[in-house]
Amino acid sequence: MPYINIKITKENEPVTAEQKQQLIEGATNLLRDVLGKNPQTTVVVIDEVEMDNWGIGGESVTERRKQGK
Amino acid sequence: MPYINIKITKENEPVTAEQKQQLIEGATNLLRDVLGKNPQTTVVVIDEVEMDNWGIGGESVTERRKQGK
Amino acid sequence: MPYINIKITKENEPVTAEQKQQLIEGATNLLRDVLGKNPQTTVVVIDEVEMDNWGIGGESVTERRKQGK
Amino acid sequence: MPYINIKITKENEPVTAEQKQQLIEGATNLLRDVLGKNPQTTVVVIDEVEMDNWGIGGESVTERRKQGK
Amino acid sequence: MPYINIKITKENEPVTAEQKQQLIEGATNLLRDVLGKNPQTTVVVIDEVEMDNWGIGGESVTERRKQGK
Amino acid sequence: MPYINIKITKENEPVTAEQKQQLIEGATNLLRDVLGKNPQTTVVVIDEVEMDNWGIGGESVTERRKQGK
Repeated sequence: MPYINIKITKENEPVTAEQKQQLIEGATNLLRDVLGKNPQTTVVVIDEVEMDNWGIGGESVTERRKQGK
Repeated sequence: MPYINIKITKENEPVTAEQKQQLIEGATNLLRDVLGKNPQTTVVVIDEVEMDNWGIGGESVTERRKQGK
Repeated sequence: MPYINIKITKENEPVTAEQKQQLIEGATNLLRDVLGKNPQTTVVVIDEVEMDNWGIGGESVTERRKQGK
Repeated sequence: MPYINIKITKENEPVTAEQKQQLIEGATNLLRDVLGKNPQTTVVVIDEVEMDNWGIGGESVTERRKQGK
Repeated sequence: MPYINIKITKENEPVTAEQKQQLIEGATNLLRDVLGKNPQTTVVVIDEVEMDNWGIGGESVTERRKQGK
Repeated sequence: MPYINIKITKENEPVTAEQKQQLIEGATNLLRDVLGKNPQTTVVVIDEVEMDNWGIGGESVTERRKQGK
């Protein structure tokens, strides 16, 4: 019955449907393997966040990418 | 003062503004009826999530819809 | 498949297991009635937040309760 | 290491990249000033929510704007 | 820079610090393997939720456990 | 009408009610100053997370503190 939320930045190269499927499967298997949780009721939600809307170290990711960080 | 977040998948048939209004009103009334919470300060936020970005049972909803689940 | 998160303050009078059950049932029925969502896969998570940890109008709820707000 | 999530409505006048940068910087500095948290590992995520999808007082913000609230 | 939130029910058998470490490591590696994300800035937050506060199928987990579900 | 969620680790030295009040006030003022948001309807929720339940760089904060990170 776990609920897993994965938040990532929306980079120039979009995340493909196949990669999202791998994240869903991997997170579901992780909860099954570590805690014995039932995959049938495990929910995974992926949020893709604009680079302007994500900050770390006091700067937006847009700024950091410009500076090559 | 409650805060309610409703996450749903973005299906082919879009959710209308009227349906969203019904979710907001219904959730606000639920908190008033069960716990006596003040509707004036009850906040409801609805997130619509792409079918590729929502997984259950280890599969994305896109995959499940293809299989008629 | 909806996911509903309800955040409320932890007041002096605790919320009972029966009231929580009413919130779970009410939120699940709301999504079924408005959008036709399947109750079997609707998840509801309730968070109870300390009054010191919730603010509105720039003040913690603890402060507001002292002032009779 | 704090994580700060700021949710705001998407109003007619869009929030600029510069304003987002100010929110990221301000929230990061707040955690440093009040709790001595390291800005380098402070994460800020801003979510902009459609006015139809945000409710307060049992009404969507779209409805409230129409009524001049 | 991803942020991953894992919500699970607080069952009678508590989740150990070692299991939590496995969840943190597993989720961090998943984002590195699938999307090439930097483990150093990947954040994982685990929430353990009381069984009374988690509902599925319109019932709290407490109720479901009583019925052997 | 903004909603701000601040997640921090529960360190050995507890965060005081006064520091929480400063976070609430500071976050509310930030949204007023940058975006002109009304403080009266700005909500702030602070979550304090056990060090075992927070990971960065693939390790729990408990582990990192032991290693003097």
